[in-house]
Amino acid sequence: MKLADLGEFGFIDRIARSIPAAAGVRLGIGDDCAALSLPPGELLLTTTDLLIEQVHFRHDWTDLRTLGRKSVAVNVSDIAAMGGTPRHLFLGLAVPVGMSVENLDDFVAGFLEAARHYGATLVGGDTCRSPGPLLISVTAEGAVPERELVRRSGARPGDAVYVSGTLGDSGLALQLLLAGQTPEPFLARRHHDPEARTGLGRALAQAAIPTAMIDISDGLLADLGHILEASQVGATIEAAALPLSEPFRRALAQESALLDLALAGGEDYELLFTVPPEREADLAELARSTGVPTTRLGRITGPKEGLIVLDRDGRPIPPRKTGYDHFGRGD
Amino acid sequence: MKLADLGEFGFIDRIARSIPAAAGVRLGIGDDCAALSLPPGELLLTTTDLLIEQVHFRHDWTDLRTLGRKSVAVNVSDIAAMGGTPRHLFLGLAVPVGMSVENLDDFVAGFLEAARHYGATLVGGDTCRSPGPLLISVTAEGAVPERELVRRSGARPGDAVYVSGTLGDSGLALQLLLAGQTPEPFLARRHHDPEARTGLGRALAQAAIPTAMIDISDGLLADLGHILEASQVGATIEAAALPLSEPFRRALAQESALLDLALAGGEDYELLFTVPPEREADLAELARSTGVPTTRLGRITGPKEGLIVLDRDGRPIPPRKTGYDHFGRGD
Repeated sequence: MKLADLGEFGFIDRIARSIPAAAGVRLGIGDDCAALSLPPGELLLTTTDLLIEQVHFRHDWTDLRTLGRKSVAVNVSDIAAMGGTPRHLFLGLAVPVGMSVENLDDFVAGFLEAARHYGATLVGGDTCRSPGPLLISVTAEGAVPERELVRRSGARPGDAVYVSGTLGDSGLALQLLLAGQTPEPFLARRHHDPEARTGLGRALAQAAIPTAMIDISDGLLADLGHILEASQVGATIEAAALPLSEPFRRALAQESALLDLALAGGEDYELLFTVPPEREADLAELARSTGVPTTRLGRITGPKEGLIVLDRDGRPIPPRKTGYDHFGRGD
Repeated sequence: MKLADLGEFGFIDRIARSIPAAAGVRLGIGDDCAALSLPPGELLLTTTDLLIEQVHFRHDWTDLRTLGRKSVAVNVSDIAAMGGTPRHLFLGLAVPVGMSVENLDDFVAGFLEAARHYGATLVGGDTCRSPGPLLISVTAEGAVPERELVRRSGARPGDAVYVSGTLGDSGLALQLLLAGQTPEPFLARRHHDPEARTGLGRALAQAAIPTAMIDISDGLLADLGHILEASQVGATIEAAALPLSEPFRRALAQESALLDLALAGGEDYELLFTVPPEREADLAELARSTGVPTTRLGRITGPKEGLIVLDRDGRPIPPRKTGYDHFGRGD
């Protein structure tokens, strides 16, 4: 079917009919605004992301259903990083003239699949034609009890630096794709179909364990840099401590320079957070109960020490190799 | 200055520093999410809109500062249509490679100017490069006391149909621009720099006057159609009752077919609402006190009667001329 035959309102109606009722959603799709209620005493969390064809994704690398899932995951990942629960999603779509209804349906199916997975409801959006590439704009709203909000700015010298999952898989997959190679399924999935750490983020916040938290979208060092800047502290981390998947380790054994991808590759969508020493035992227990591995990378230091990455022999890796200057500190 | 020299984070930092603290904004720009609080007992209203170069605007027709203001106005207009107060704004920008920092600064200046005007605060967003046109994605959040929420679905047979301001000015300006002519300043302003009726919308809701309300973005008949569909009713309106500005009347005197622009032109951003007969006196008083003229267009009828537009002699205008089938009812 051609999109012109279905029409904008036909397309929206079809989506609206497929969405189940949800607690707190007074009005979803179909009025001027969505009308929503949050649990009393909870803060509203809101984040928005643009995903643009040729900039953030390529049709020939990902199917649209997977892209639909990813466009939800990268947004709710930001809510996880504040310790919140995802609740509402808004989808803006600028659709190229040639795109088929079937392709759009695949995208929406993936989007709704991920929404269900994370417990959020699609409650509004906007659609129009695009004279250029496919453009996706997602806004996610969540809620967090006021005292459980985790910011970037609470890291203190002496805190341990932790990260969930493994690093560099997504960056390695992208590098292989750019080189015209086919990443193995595990790596491809980590890049195209990331899992936001909403369960872990919420559990950490509820237990009041992290002093600061961020999700890794720009790369470990860039995002750690955001915590350091917001908290006015430094950090020393050990390259040998980086959690690496088996596929990543195999590639690293062939080419040691790939370590940069774990340090600065980006799009890991893991949680990076700081923990006071007296809470590290609680964290170990919580990580066991949630089933998400967490790894200590190093320590927060004073503000003058900056961000230092030590190699296996305890020598600082030069900043250029760490990608640290990539986000504009110290240059 | 080139955008590459300033950088994404530099650009965001400059914006963040220019935004004053605001009540209810716990965290604005600079963390993974904005963290916000709403007045207790109020519903959260959220709406999102895409504005795309060549689709929604053209650089040669509007300066970027005005475009910044319009991108706020069209969003808060949706909040006004629910009876709410605008509170938070999120700005997604996909910026073409060639765009200068000065142009972006102009856009942001207009955006922030309008935000202040409507009492809302810019608290988050996303920026990236665009391989195609300039793309603007705005999400607006507002709040409304639960009992004052005005939906599209409450219109009842016998209610009067009212509209604020004048109709067709924006459509006429667009038609002149498309014909290569220069609209006079009043008409141009109505198209490029519309004023959202936030004060009127809020006052109407607070006084519990409208049974249904919508803002006119798609055109009077299309948006009245949305109310009729949501409320499961019909309506009869009189073309002679349409509120028209002096510049519009002058053009209409030359070419009577321009009446279509008042019926279906779109982008008026006026409020269209229905009022029970016993509240029409209250409305007249409220319109006087807010200084926004409101005009009665006709009456809500039973569902089987559909939408009828009567000409000056009381004869129905054929649907094709009204633009009624434009939004897919009855075809």
